[in-house]
Amino acid sequence: MRIELEPIGHVTSTRAEIRDDDWDSEVASITLDPAVFTADALRGLEEFSHVEIVYFFDRVPPEGVEYGARRPRGNPDWPLTGIFAQRGKNRPNRLGLTIARVVAVDGLTLEVAGLDAIDGTPVLDIKPYMREFGPRGDMRQPMWATELMSGYWASGD
Amino acid sequence: MRIELEPIGHVTSTRAEIRDDDWDSEVASITLDPAVFTADALRGLEEFSHVEIVYFFDRVPPEGVEYGARRPRGNPDWPLTGIFAQRGKNRPNRLGLTIARVVAVDGLTLEVAGLDAIDGTPVLDIKPYMREFGPRGDMRQPMWATELMSGYWASGD
Repeated sequence: MRIELEPIGHVTSTRAEIRDDDWDSEVASITLDPAVFTADALRGLEEFSHVEIVYFFDRVPPEGVEYGARRPRGNPDWPLTGIFAQRGKNRPNRLGLTIARVVAVDGLTLEVAGLDAIDGTPVLDIKPYMREFGPRGDMRQPMWATELMSGYWASGD
Repeated sequence: MRIELEPIGHVTSTRAEIRDDDWDSEVASITLDPAVFTADALRGLEEFSHVEIVYFFDRVPPEGVEYGARRPRGNPDWPLTGIFAQRGKNRPNRLGLTIARVVAVDGLTLEVAGLDAIDGTPVLDIKPYMREFGPRGDMRQPMWATELMSGYWASGD
């Protein structure tokens, strides 16, 4: 079974190459495809503080996809971890997913803060973040994940 | 530009038909495609309390997709809202996205709680939920969203 998707728009970002960390220093926006959408599609989105963005890691070649386990970022200090137990981009279907802050909505363009996608990335969906869709119950994650994320948004330099 | 995806597995759920509310009463699991994956792909996932599941609303016909604005659930009390400012299933690319609780990992099967996908739904990705990927800064959402979500997980009956 094949599922065919069409980008709804693309990312414009001040980051043009793949790097792992310090994403908060970038400014990004998403512009919807004007051949398909009007401003109606984003109507009311400014009433939400956050959105979930689903995007496609189009710069990852199919032969780079991991189907089994590997150490996150190849770091020998971190455990051998299944590709579905990490968020690395070399994953089956190459989907990226991030909760970003809504900065502004203007016509077909959504400006966001904290989107870890490089310039030109195809966007597949935008969903408003609702409190009730957050994790329910106690949260737990392994130490390596907390270590990996420590410089992700801000490098601390 | 077309993007072709392949389901990584499918949902098994006690809910077989589309209904909007009371999802917490259901038990669900995801089984990875045994032709592609081994248990390695889920290795270490049990160390996370929550996962994000990306799935495909395969029961929504293409002609049912909304590209503009509509009232959420057709409710006349709620405002005309863009399809990207609501989470309804009749959306471009028909992607569903939910944070669920990890109950157990066993071989190719991940058992979860709080997954709002019906039996047989194709799954496109599983990502571990990391605290640092949650919404950062103050959260805000319109009143209609809070009202809509009030019976979503538990009906309160």
